[in-house]
Amino acid sequence: MAAKQDPEALAAARPLLTDLYQVTMALGYWRAGRAHDPAEFELFFRQCPFGGSFALAAGLRDCVRFLRAFRLRDADVQFLASVLPPDTDPAFFQHLRALDSSGVTVRALPEGSLAFPGVPLLQVSGPLLLVQLLETPLLCLVSYASLVATNAARLRLIAGPEKRLLDLGLRRAQGPDGGLTASTYSYLGGFDGSSNVLAGQLRGVPVVGTLAHSFVTSFSGTEVPPDPMLAPAAGQGPRVDLTTCVEAWLERVCAHLGLGVQDPHPGERAAFVAYALAFPRAFQGLLDTYSVRRSGLPNFLAVALALGELGYQAVGVRLDSGDLLQQAQEIRGLFRTTAAQFQMPWLESVPIAVSNNIDEEELARLAQEGSEVNVIGIGTSMVTCPRQPSLGCVYKLVSVGGQPRMKLTEDPDKQTLPGSKAAFRLLGSDGSLLLDVLQLAEEPPPQAGQELRIWPRGARESCLVRPAQLCKPLPSLAESRAFAQLSLSRLSPAHRRLEQPALYQVALSEKLQALVHRLRAGASL
Amino acid sequence: MAAKQDPEALAAARPLLTDLYQVTMALGYWRAGRAHDPAEFELFFRQCPFGGSFALAAGLRDCVRFLRAFRLRDADVQFLASVLPPDTDPAFFQHLRALDSSGVTVRALPEGSLAFPGVPLLQVSGPLLLVQLLETPLLCLVSYASLVATNAARLRLIAGPEKRLLDLGLRRAQGPDGGLTASTYSYLGGFDGSSNVLAGQLRGVPVVGTLAHSFVTSFSGTEVPPDPMLAPAAGQGPRVDLTTCVEAWLERVCAHLGLGVQDPHPGERAAFVAYALAFPRAFQGLLDTYSVRRSGLPNFLAVALALGELGYQAVGVRLDSGDLLQQAQEIRGLFRTTAAQFQMPWLESVPIAVSNNIDEEELARLAQEGSEVNVIGIGTSMVTCPRQPSLGCVYKLVSVGGQPRMKLTEDPDKQTLPGSKAAFRLLGSDGSLLLDVLQLAEEPPPQAGQELRIWPRGARESCLVRPAQLCKPLPSLAESRAFAQLSLSRLSPAHRRLEQPALYQVALSEKLQALVHRLRAGASL
Repeated sequence: MAAKQDPEALAAARPLLTDLYQVTMALGYWRAGRAHDPAEFELFFRQCPFGGSFALAAGLRDCVRFLRAFRLRDADVQFLASVLPPDTDPAFFQHLRALDSSGVTVRALPEGSLAFPGVPLLQVSGPLLLVQLLETPLLCLVSYASLVATNAARLRLIAGPEKRLLDLGLRRAQGPDGGLTASTYSYLGGFDGSSNVLAGQLRGVPVVGTLAHSFVTSFSGTEVPPDPMLAPAAGQGPRVDLTTCVEAWLERVCAHLGLGVQDPHPGERAAFVAYALAFPRAFQGLLDTYSVRRSGLPNFLAVALALGELGYQAVGVRLDSGDLLQQAQEIRGLFRTTAAQFQMPWLESVPIAVSNNIDEEELARLAQEGSEVNVIGIGTSMVTCPRQPSLGCVYKLVSVGGQPRMKLTEDPDKQTLPGSKAAFRLLGSDGSLLLDVLQLAEEPPPQAGQELRIWPRGARESCLVRPAQLCKPLPSLAESRAFAQLSLSRLSPAHRRLEQPALYQVALSEKLQALVHRLRAGASL
Repeated sequence: MAAKQDPEALAAARPLLTDLYQVTMALGYWRAGRAHDPAEFELFFRQCPFGGSFALAAGLRDCVRFLRAFRLRDADVQFLASVLPPDTDPAFFQHLRALDSSGVTVRALPEGSLAFPGVPLLQVSGPLLLVQLLETPLLCLVSYASLVATNAARLRLIAGPEKRLLDLGLRRAQGPDGGLTASTYSYLGGFDGSSNVLAGQLRGVPVVGTLAHSFVTSFSGTEVPPDPMLAPAAGQGPRVDLTTCVEAWLERVCAHLGLGVQDPHPGERAAFVAYALAFPRAFQGLLDTYSVRRSGLPNFLAVALALGELGYQAVGVRLDSGDLLQQAQEIRGLFRTTAAQFQMPWLESVPIAVSNNIDEEELARLAQEGSEVNVIGIGTSMVTCPRQPSLGCVYKLVSVGGQPRMKLTEDPDKQTLPGSKAAFRLLGSDGSLLLDVLQLAEEPPPQAGQELRIWPRGARESCLVRPAQLCKPLPSLAESRAFAQLSLSRLSPAHRRLEQPALYQVALSEKLQALVHRLRAGASL
């Protein structure tokens, strides 16, 4: 019922957005009389993405939204009945119909936290049948959100704090809410905004956008605007005909740039004038529809200077092809000479925005010392995370009926850590990260200043640590993004290297290590 | 209003799932008095994905669903008003509120068609402001659907026609309907089914699934099933206690395999019994939770043989780690000796299913001559398309007010083909593909058997072709998948090579070539 009242919940995950084996296992549990056995699962990843040393946790708010609305409708249960054996006990379907998440407890890393391999992002406990059913939707909601937030954080580290980074990836996403997820969590990871309007409406992400080549090519120059008149920015004085004013400025600009007044494309100029009439306070030119030097730039300057005469300042130019860095240098130079020539000093610092298949390497180039690029739009590499398009999170049973459980497969990388656990992040006296400790839920928490015996994961010997502080998770809401930046500031230089990962240490407590040993020995009997 | 009545439409794209610049351009068009100018856009890609020679068109039904429901609600328009200039004319928002897709015409390649660079997947015509607004959602709906269908078709070509291919990618998708899209269009591209229940419910994709490691590890062996009794498959004869029966078979199986009866994990066996009680006609074992040879396989055989005695035949085993090909060979060998030993001949051919990060290379290995693998589940490489995670479709204005439009950027790869066009696929006398011809909409269509002068794209000279047949698009519904297989059968061996692309030829008609020349010349004046 809840789902029907919340269009956002409907638009996101639904209970049947799950793998069929969750349902067949549910029937198995039910038939074995174990539907209500108390169980706990952990959701974690095994390796930091992109060959780096960290990840950012994200997706929790989508999980909470999904769980609040979790309810199988009649149509859902009917569909399940159609794919399960025809002689399945009807009481099983009644059980499904009555499920909701009221008996489920989720403990989680706050969104924007640093996350490391093996340390749970979510710990989900509740009735075995139900928490099993939740596996796939929770994985689906957490994995990509965390991946894309981490991707954004990497791109932010490469770009440095000054550049404006914009997500333009919606059209390259895996369908509608792939795009919504990417826009939301790239913002969390450190981007400044997104082109995705729905992310603005539903999630409050700042949205940005101006014009595309189609707008420019749609004008031939013969169009007559129904109202070409524009009032001065201050509101004082008579309205002027912007078209006429732009044509006058074009002559002066072409003379300054050494171009013929016929060179700039009249359709492009008409498009710029139309855009300026609609957005006099936010005029931006897209320069590369025909020729940047011979057309886009003089047309932009003519419109920007005509607006400038009326007291408006253009807000930017955009380039979408060619050598972006080099063109930005040239354009900045021409902005400077033009600003001086016509005594419009604000023109010097009009932001230059670039886009066009920008990846980590190209971003590093665009962000180099002396670059005149101010705004960088990233689409495909933001949303598809091409270096590693999946985080590969898993959701593993760690306890059932109060008893620890462990998967002991012959592939040691796929072994799990048993038992209901608590994770603590230990900090040094300067606030830097020491390591994460996993211990059994029943163990007393570590104390600042007290020595602790731990087992680094995979090590054969224990060691002692003495944390100066423990990391206190913040309550996570709109502050998640600020929290992510705070989280990232704790990374050591070694962990900020994006190419040669320095593994962050995750360690086990004495008791947890002993439990692992016990279960390993028991299974090898 | 339509959207409110169709939960599926709500779950998919909404009008605000668009880039903000579509909205700012809409205001620009409106302010320029051009909202109603008749316009046409083409949606196409510039390069075949994955370094191959073809793509499959897909996503059209999602576009149609989106267009049917297209309507900005009051809340949508209010949000747009909040991000546009505060002095925007209220009449613009009234215009937006009244928009629907009744004036929009879409011509499209049927889903499952082969698609080639530059040949439009969609041709969208209607009022300029509106068809501009549709750009991002249509790109979002077509690009990934076509990419994933193409990916599935490649994987099918590698696997050959016999292997069952299953999509398991939901948890690796970019959020909820990334997964839904992947499951739907991997089926279109040639997969046999998906684990994604929602794809079954909403799209009719066959769904598959049995059990995971968590089910196995949730049992310790001390659990007592509330009802361990099972009736024979034929319904005749007394019910028997399956647990007891399995323990008896375990001794015989262990003796045959040379194992101690203590070797197989009792919890794993209890899980298999629980699953068999729920699914006696569809029992499948997941073999690698503890040890395939020492535990998973003997436990599976004990349960399968106990079921066999009652007239039930197990439907499969699954492996999720280790060397899948080699283990499948060993398991098939043991199935054969066990089938002979206990005179259960059906056991020989129990399907062996495998999963675990299978990519194109591993698939080729699993599909090699003599492989005993029957069913292959692919998750990450199916859904993320790691070789090329985005198709990079574009949506370009080709005509406005009846006048052709062309983007003439200095980057020749980004130039567009002007004018409202028609595309024809020419076939040889054996039904094989010759090439695609793009011509202006006003030109008479090519005729089978008649010579035609064409300009291969990028060529400096024209040439003559004489098609034996023209490709007739089928009406596309549930037949799209069959159509995709038919489409793929037309590919020449050169175009089926997945690594060294042989470029399929796309050619322009004389008139279109002449128009390109004219516009190029005009812009360089």
